[in-house]
Amino acid sequence: MAYSLRAQGYRLIAISFDYGQRHRKELEFAEQMAADLDAPWTLIDLHAAGLTSFLTGSALTDETVTVPDGHYADESMRITVVPNRNAIMLSIACALAVTRDAGAVAFGAHAGDHFIYPDCRPEFVHAFESMVNLAVDGLATLEIITPFLSMTKTAIVELGSELNVPFERTWSCYKGGTLHCGTCGTCFERREAFAQAQVVDPTTYETDAAPART
Amino acid sequence: MAYSLRAQGYRLIAISFDYGQRHRKELEFAEQMAADLDAPWTLIDLHAAGLTSFLTGSALTDETVTVPDGHYADESMRITVVPNRNAIMLSIACALAVTRDAGAVAFGAHAGDHFIYPDCRPEFVHAFESMVNLAVDGLATLEIITPFLSMTKTAIVELGSELNVPFERTWSCYKGGTLHCGTCGTCFERREAFAQAQVVDPTTYETDAAPART
Repeated sequence: MAYSLRAQGYRLIAISFDYGQRHRKELEFAEQMAADLDAPWTLIDLHAAGLTSFLTGSALTDETVTVPDGHYADESMRITVVPNRNAIMLSIACALAVTRDAGAVAFGAHAGDHFIYPDCRPEFVHAFESMVNLAVDGLATLEIITPFLSMTKTAIVELGSELNVPFERTWSCYKGGTLHCGTCGTCFERREAFAQAQVVDPTTYETDAAPART
Repeated sequence: MAYSLRAQGYRLIAISFDYGQRHRKELEFAEQMAADLDAPWTLIDLHAAGLTSFLTGSALTDETVTVPDGHYADESMRITVVPNRNAIMLSIACALAVTRDAGAVAFGAHAGDHFIYPDCRPEFVHAFESMVNLAVDGLATLEIITPFLSMTKTAIVELGSELNVPFERTWSCYKGGTLHCGTCGTCFERREAFAQAQVVDPTTYETDAAPART
């Protein structure tokens, strides 16, 4: 998304969140990508804020809950939901946008997220945009940009390939190990997207064989 | 608000935010009141999260900006706006509510706030409630309770007096000194509310004389 927006001429400010995700490792990749794009990078540490003391029960933030393997659309993936995560992150990003005189906040939710993550759906995004413009009425007008909202990961990989995105410098895996595991929901979709887009996947996975589709 | 909700039979969970406000002192009062009401209390430290590194420019969070004296409705009070503050706080409170199986989040915005704080207005509250219920769709249904939204501070003092609220154990002053200053926007309104409600004001102010009304 960052590469695409830059190609469209946007000036970028990057913001990342530590919300106690076990794949906290994604933050290093985000910081590096912001540097590659000459975008100032801000880390908001919600873990230090004490937020993760109660965001338990999700496989993404609770070490006692196992990250499920399989496809996003599986019922088992519901355990990866962190309640209201995106409203929290977007509200903070919008505050940053107001203080930096930015006119928009971009959010990379994609079509494959909708099934299990209610806060990735178009109706949420539209309601959030209405809400935040009332919240900052008189201070700013903000657009919530979601270029991938109706795009599959396959289409996103195709776009990234056209833009020469260095995919080897990106991180997806929910387990946050040394390598991408290759079997969790987000790894599953990452592999599938490269395969369907017929783009060479530069990722090294722990498990080589692509998991079965069903 | 807490006393009123408890009188109505609600079970309470209290949440406070350190957002770098210079009247951080209000947090000790909130913690004490939660203890008085046997409500578990959670502090979210947005200052530790790094949020206040960019929430500059407001008199509430930026030590280089002077807290203005006078009435809330004065144009000068706009400097006390912290952009998108209430959407951030409410989003986090709603996440806590979902994880604790609470059915509602209560928010003490009052009628006197509307003029300068866009994120205290009824249209913001309604838009927020719609947004958050889309964000947590399938996980929870949340009501945003705002009992004071159309009440003046005078009416709030009258209600508090009926409920025997220990007003001496509450804090308003934006300056956050040893005593309430008596002259900033929120002290001005506090004094005025007690006077108009004809309730004895137990607060010790630095400046004894009530400021002139115009």
